Amino acid sequence: MDFRMEKDTIGEIAVPADRMWGAQTQRSSENFRIGTERMPIEVIRSLALLKKSAAAVNRDLGKLAADKADAIIRAADEILAGQWDDHFPLVVWQTGSGTQSNMNVNEVIAHLASGNGVKIHPNDDVNMSQSSNDTFPTAMHMAALSAIEDKVLPAVTVLKETLHKKSEQFQDVIKIGRTHLQDATPITLGQEISGWVRMLEKSESMIRSAAENLRELAIGGTAVGTGINAHPEFGDRVAAEISKQTGKRFVSAANKFHALTSHDELVFVHGALKALAADLMKIANDVRWLASGPRSGIGEITIPANEPGSSIMPGKVNPTQSEAMTMVVCQVMGNDAAIGFAASQGNFELNVFKPVIAYAFLQSARLLSDALHSFNDNCAVGIEPNLPAIAGHLERSLMLVTALNPLIGYENAASIAKTAHKEGLTLKEAALRSGLLTEEQFNEIVRPERMVRQQS
Amino acid sequence: MDFRMEKDTIGEIAVPADRMWGAQTQRSSENFRIGTERMPIEVIRSLALLKKSAAAVNRDLGKLAADKADAIIRAADEILAGQWDDHFPLVVWQTGSGTQSNMNVNEVIAHLASGNGVKIHPNDDVNMSQSSNDTFPTAMHMAALSAIEDKVLPAVTVLKETLHKKSEQFQDVIKIGRTHLQDATPITLGQEISGWVRMLEKSESMIRSAAENLRELAIGGTAVGTGINAHPEFGDRVAAEISKQTGKRFVSAANKFHALTSHDELVFVHGALKALAADLMKIANDVRWLASGPRSGIGEITIPANEPGSSIMPGKVNPTQSEAMTMVVCQVMGNDAAIGFAASQGNFELNVFKPVIAYAFLQSARLLSDALHSFNDNCAVGIEPNLPAIAGHLERSLMLVTALNPLIGYENAASIAKTAHKEGLTLKEAALRSGLLTEEQFNEIVRPERMVRQQS
Amino acid sequence: MDFRMEKDTIGEIAVPADRMWGAQTQRSSENFRIGTERMPIEVIRSLALLKKSAAAVNRDLGKLAADKADAIIRAADEILAGQWDDHFPLVVWQTGSGTQSNMNVNEVIAHLASGNGVKIHPNDDVNMSQSSNDTFPTAMHMAALSAIEDKVLPAVTVLKETLHKKSEQFQDVIKIGRTHLQDATPITLGQEISGWVRMLEKSESMIRSAAENLRELAIGGTAVGTGINAHPEFGDRVAAEISKQTGKRFVSAANKFHALTSHDELVFVHGALKALAADLMKIANDVRWLASGPRSGIGEITIPANEPGSSIMPGKVNPTQSEAMTMVVCQVMGNDAAIGFAASQGNFELNVFKPVIAYAFLQSARLLSDALHSFNDNCAVGIEPNLPAIAGHLERSLMLVTALNPLIGYENAASIAKTAHKEGLTLKEAALRSGLLTEEQFNEIVRPERMVRQQS
Amino acid sequence: MDFRMEKDTIGEIAVPADRMWGAQTQRSSENFRIGTERMPIEVIRSLALLKKSAAAVNRDLGKLAADKADAIIRAADEILAGQWDDHFPLVVWQTGSGTQSNMNVNEVIAHLASGNGVKIHPNDDVNMSQSSNDTFPTAMHMAALSAIEDKVLPAVTVLKETLHKKSEQFQDVIKIGRTHLQDATPITLGQEISGWVRMLEKSESMIRSAAENLRELAIGGTAVGTGINAHPEFGDRVAAEISKQTGKRFVSAANKFHALTSHDELVFVHGALKALAADLMKIANDVRWLASGPRSGIGEITIPANEPGSSIMPGKVNPTQSEAMTMVVCQVMGNDAAIGFAASQGNFELNVFKPVIAYAFLQSARLLSDALHSFNDNCAVGIEPNLPAIAGHLERSLMLVTALNPLIGYENAASIAKTAHKEGLTLKEAALRSGLLTEEQFNEIVRPERMVRQQS
Repeated sequence: MDFRMEKDTIGEIAVPADRMWGAQTQRSSENFRIGTERMPIEVIRSLALLKKSAAAVNRDLGKLAADKADAIIRAADEILAGQWDDHFPLVVWQTGSGTQSNMNVNEVIAHLASGNGVKIHPNDDVNMSQSSNDTFPTAMHMAALSAIEDKVLPAVTVLKETLHKKSEQFQDVIKIGRTHLQDATPITLGQEISGWVRMLEKSESMIRSAAENLRELAIGGTAVGTGINAHPEFGDRVAAEISKQTGKRFVSAANKFHALTSHDELVFVHGALKALAADLMKIANDVRWLASGPRSGIGEITIPANEPGSSIMPGKVNPTQSEAMTMVVCQVMGNDAAIGFAASQGNFELNVFKPVIAYAFLQSARLLSDALHSFNDNCAVGIEPNLPAIAGHLERSLMLVTALNPLIGYENAASIAKTAHKEGLTLKEAALRSGLLTEEQFNEIVRPERMVRQQS
Repeated sequence: MDFRMEKDTIGEIAVPADRMWGAQTQRSSENFRIGTERMPIEVIRSLALLKKSAAAVNRDLGKLAADKADAIIRAADEILAGQWDDHFPLVVWQTGSGTQSNMNVNEVIAHLASGNGVKIHPNDDVNMSQSSNDTFPTAMHMAALSAIEDKVLPAVTVLKETLHKKSEQFQDVIKIGRTHLQDATPITLGQEISGWVRMLEKSESMIRSAAENLRELAIGGTAVGTGINAHPEFGDRVAAEISKQTGKRFVSAANKFHALTSHDELVFVHGALKALAADLMKIANDVRWLASGPRSGIGEITIPANEPGSSIMPGKVNPTQSEAMTMVVCQVMGNDAAIGFAASQGNFELNVFKPVIAYAFLQSARLLSDALHSFNDNCAVGIEPNLPAIAGHLERSLMLVTALNPLIGYENAASIAKTAHKEGLTLKEAALRSGLLTEEQFNEIVRPERMVRQQS
Repeated sequence: MDFRMEKDTIGEIAVPADRMWGAQTQRSSENFRIGTERMPIEVIRSLALLKKSAAAVNRDLGKLAADKADAIIRAADEILAGQWDDHFPLVVWQTGSGTQSNMNVNEVIAHLASGNGVKIHPNDDVNMSQSSNDTFPTAMHMAALSAIEDKVLPAVTVLKETLHKKSEQFQDVIKIGRTHLQDATPITLGQEISGWVRMLEKSESMIRSAAENLRELAIGGTAVGTGINAHPEFGDRVAAEISKQTGKRFVSAANKFHALTSHDELVFVHGALKALAADLMKIANDVRWLASGPRSGIGEITIPANEPGSSIMPGKVNPTQSEAMTMVVCQVMGNDAAIGFAASQGNFELNVFKPVIAYAFLQSARLLSDALHSFNDNCAVGIEPNLPAIAGHLERSLMLVTALNPLIGYENAASIAKTAHKEGLTLKEAALRSGLLTEEQFNEIVRPERMVRQQS
Repeated sequence: MDFRMEKDTIGEIAVPADRMWGAQTQRSSENFRIGTERMPIEVIRSLALLKKSAAAVNRDLGKLAADKADAIIRAADEILAGQWDDHFPLVVWQTGSGTQSNMNVNEVIAHLASGNGVKIHPNDDVNMSQSSNDTFPTAMHMAALSAIEDKVLPAVTVLKETLHKKSEQFQDVIKIGRTHLQDATPITLGQEISGWVRMLEKSESMIRSAAENLRELAIGGTAVGTGINAHPEFGDRVAAEISKQTGKRFVSAANKFHALTSHDELVFVHGALKALAADLMKIANDVRWLASGPRSGIGEITIPANEPGSSIMPGKVNPTQSEAMTMVVCQVMGNDAAIGFAASQGNFELNVFKPVIAYAFLQSARLLSDALHSFNDNCAVGIEPNLPAIAGHLERSLMLVTALNPLIGYENAASIAKTAHKEGLTLKEAALRSGLLTEEQFNEIVRPERMVRQQS
């Protein structure tokens, strides 16, 4: 391999000749041989967009020469276009301020932008008016908001709409309800699914409102929050420029000391993702239980058979999309613990657990989005009721007795249900045997189609 | 002990004669001898208020005789006044729908309300138009919103205001900043504390907005969400009545199937409490580190000495309020994991992990509120700067070199700092020795009081 | 209320006249009004036993007068007998070293032991050769080992033996197996339950081996691990005395610096409790799913009907013991997160998160023990197979086709199963229709009773 | 791109022509476009070794023709040699039994092994006597044990030995101890580090003992634990063969129903990793706090300066290895939550959360191992005491007063310390002023070098 020598304030170091990065990136790649998890590309791209915006603002403020600014902007655009993805080799497990990835971006831009008589310095030019301590959390918020708005929420919407259609389509399919896994009063399949739809609606609304907190950017705080070496207007102007570039509203954080030391916003937003995950666990579980069988389970719905289910049991079909989804939920729950822990460990003017927070947050967002689409496309769209099974369960149920409470009281009704259960009778048989009501009354009251709608 | 016989649909059972509860409560107390954690009294009181409201509504709807309703209301009022707290003996670890605590309230009210020719049935009268499946989650939201609005938020405000005052008071105390635990550029003590204030402001705002989701009540859904045996207006009317009684706005949940099966709102709100906890960990840690010493630590602030710190080391004083606070944080983090897990485990028409969710949520709210007050009263109000220590640290620091970047560039500045560090020089000595700037320039630029404010 | 004045190195303070505690306890009770969770009585009792042992050892080493030692021992014995439980009012959320509860015990003992011409000082006499920093972690290990050996393991054994009997009893009840919730090849009910038995065996063995690590005691380390002010033999002698008193083997920790700063042993042992909890979740879930129905679920077993299941649905019976158990599991999972977090937060010579670790650990142990007994007595002992349901499911199943793989290959077998499923045939009908085997072959191979045992 | 058609029991599907996998792998790659986390290569290799062992055993048992067995073994060896790593494209988020990755291995082996007149079927030949349900958990244990024995434990040993050397080297460097972050009695730097060494010793021992539980393999259980379609000796023989191949002792699990449904062993072993993580958090924190400064912190040790610490503050050096390590700890804590959750969610004859458990476990093992090496090589080996700072802190400390307790009692000693603190005296000045002891006594007793060793 060919090398060139690069230099930073520590000294010289050999860098592979075909890599755009510089000394500090090289040093980090040698000093942190930990794991395989690279700094998420979303963070790198957000840093590149930030560098581009900062260069424009520094130019406008008269701090950076126009030719330098333009060169930086061109280089950043190439990164944003995905041309240099392989030149950001650093792992998550580096310095906790993300300094090394910030420098990685500074170095690659400086390298790409230098030439034609322009010499760009990674610190003095690309990082001008900035510190890793404000750029990295800025990139975290940019990447997180994009993940929420551009991936998670649209994916939630997709599944919500599919289920909403199913809910409407099956609004008259009356089936047995189940509480405590035990037979309960009737419900329609549409109603049951409407509960799932509402989960997604609530999650959507909670995630959306929580994500508003991501609009505040640390930029302008520089090293410790005082904004040393940055122009007083720098933070506001960069936030405005990023808003323009992304089409998303961002503002400069009201208090930069907070912005460098606290990641309460990300904990909060990830809490909303956890609430979504809890709901998805329930939905995915309901789907697989309702589809269980085909002959010895509940079997009230069918789902698509996408692949052979077993390497040994021929013809077996499994609820694999539910399984992928529920495993994603486990990971999101784990990530939530990791993020909360990490966010609590700041000291003085900085929290140095930023990369792990970014990594875990973006992993959750990506997994949830992808799993939502996968579950939707490969499972939810194909949910169909198994009408004979549904009818069979409903007919056999004893909990229709609940409708008799207002007429004969809870205790008499209980006695009828118990008799039916013990003696293997139908509910009607037991009810009539009790002598507490006539067959006419029974037929009038114990009607599943009445029991699924509130009556005045 | 004296006993009387009580009866439910299972049969007869002996109940201590002086207890107001009935057969089902007794049964639960015998069948669930698990732990010492009683169902939180906040849940019991919320159920009592709900029973009172339901009785009024059932009366107004013509379903319940006025004398019965009035008797129920009077009994509920006695419970709300705290007269019967000892009559709710059940533990958290019971049936997962909270049915047994719902019945405990039904039974105690029925017992108290019966007499003078009125005979109140716990199911048919007190529980009229209700099911544990809608009353218990209703009580969870009522209790949780009250815990947030009446306890947590006021406690956050108290500490926020104390710290805000401190921040203003110390706005001109210039001190060394620290990032990565290493000396950094200067900051004022007021700025440092303003970061804590902002944490509390953000948490306050995030908790408040999240808690809006608690206003939706399950009541009206009854057994499975269809509202069987309840009047179509029952949910709305009860929510209105509870709003009137509590002075808090509540509404009937838009989708009752969701309200019985999902606790996404509580996961979300507890996520906001976790974000607060993460911030409090940082604040409490900063306080104890800044107060560390008194002679061999950082020692830049002093905090009140409230008790002897050591059983063996005489005269030792410890940051005990920080310790209590950070232990509370651990518990809140644990509770967050418990709640997320529990909320994910619903099936079909019900989530049967309600009591553990209520318990963990209310414990977090109580611990955070109490710890906030304790930390405020016994520690934060007494924070004072140790001016000699602050001045000493500031003078010795090398990171003031950062201010030279715009003049001489990052690399030259680094070289000056390294020389000073290696040779034990002051920054000024090393700067002048470099020949890159004059003493006049140094004196003009390297002024801490300039470095803590952004300059145009 | 009557008061007396007590004094510590901070000054005087009024203490309720009828309370045995002193100034430091009083101070803590006023400074930490946080929550309702008292320091677990198991910790208090362990401290009392430790004080008793220390007094004996100090006497034997010639450091403490015999009359003083005897007075201390007598007072400790009264505490151990439960006579003074109300005199330990402090909450968990106090100083993180547990100093205040250590002093609470010192003060109560000093108070009880003084008189008859003997004046006992809480620090100089009761706490002689000790520091909270070594006594509190010593008490944590004593209490934790007792909770494991005297409560958790016996409770695991009880359920294990019940299930073992059930497993043997049902060893010939052939039923459908289920994987992915889908019908699979047959299994006996006894085999299915044997998997649960093995879970308990494994947990028992893992908990037992992990708990060996609790035998090391911090005592002898005093303030920072160096053992300052303690005789070099103090730690060993006290450990021996405690072993004698408790009948459990304890030793002085090999490295006291570790013993004061790390709670890795408790994290590890609680990890074993978490593994047990994960297994219990699975067992409790299996029980409730197998018992689901009674008419529209899987319904292959019945469990005892202990209480009315619903406040609105008459005659409903729910798997409430499974519900209590699985809620306990959630709490244990939460506690595991809290303990791991707390154990990670030590600094220098001390971890100051000891009370929350003790609290969460002992809560888990208590809840698991109690829930195991409750589940055993009120549910497991009454598990019975529902033979008609079991037979019905087995007959209908298609996955018996797996037995044909060796004869006709996976793909042909799959094709038979799919035909049967699609056309509603029995497996035999579809198999014969395929022409790949004779009826005789089918009858010979597709025999559930052969399929549940490995064949050579 | 070129394609070929492949077929499974679902039908035909196009596979890229240059890929060795078959229809089921292709199907999974299309149906589960979720995230970027591939099934860990350690699992794939373990499956390949298992397939090789199974082929040998099936041949020996007379079930598989020798030429087929040999072809399978050769193909597996190529996979084990790393020749086909790119042919295992599936992600973690697939079916929860790992069936698709098991089939991926079956298909690649079948493809590689077919030819020269031998036609190998992925199910009938490669998967003979096996099911994903027993092969996948077998591979999980194989991969996990290897990760523990070959990676984690050696890495722990490396850091332990480095720290042990440092502990011996600094055994006479007397310094101030700190508890509650406050000055305490003296300790040697060697003693302080010996506490870290003991943490690693304990973790090593706990991990090692816990990992014994991984030696039990599910193989032989096939579809549901009954071993259907496998020879009765198959499990034992394959375990023996794997032991021979790996040089690690493995046995066939005592109860296969457990082996398919419970991952209590992995929860338990990961609990030991979590205990290690908690210890590493403490060690890494101590290192960075002791190295804090350089001028305004504690500054009692120096650590290597490996890279420029700040993009804005020139000359800054940060404790980056501590930061990487503590971020890894957060991830391990999160993984522990994910694994515990996943392990609790089994139903009936299978736990279908296997891939996420394998993924999270192996990630923790890899991160811990790598971070241990990185921390050791780039930080721990370079730890040196800053003797002037250490001496300065020790001289100033007041807690040496503790040594006076036995002579003058706790209260008098406290009074001396408080006077010194309040009036800015040295301890000696305040002690002599008290009149309670002579200068000679003071000089005799208050000697740090005596205070760091227990005295008889």
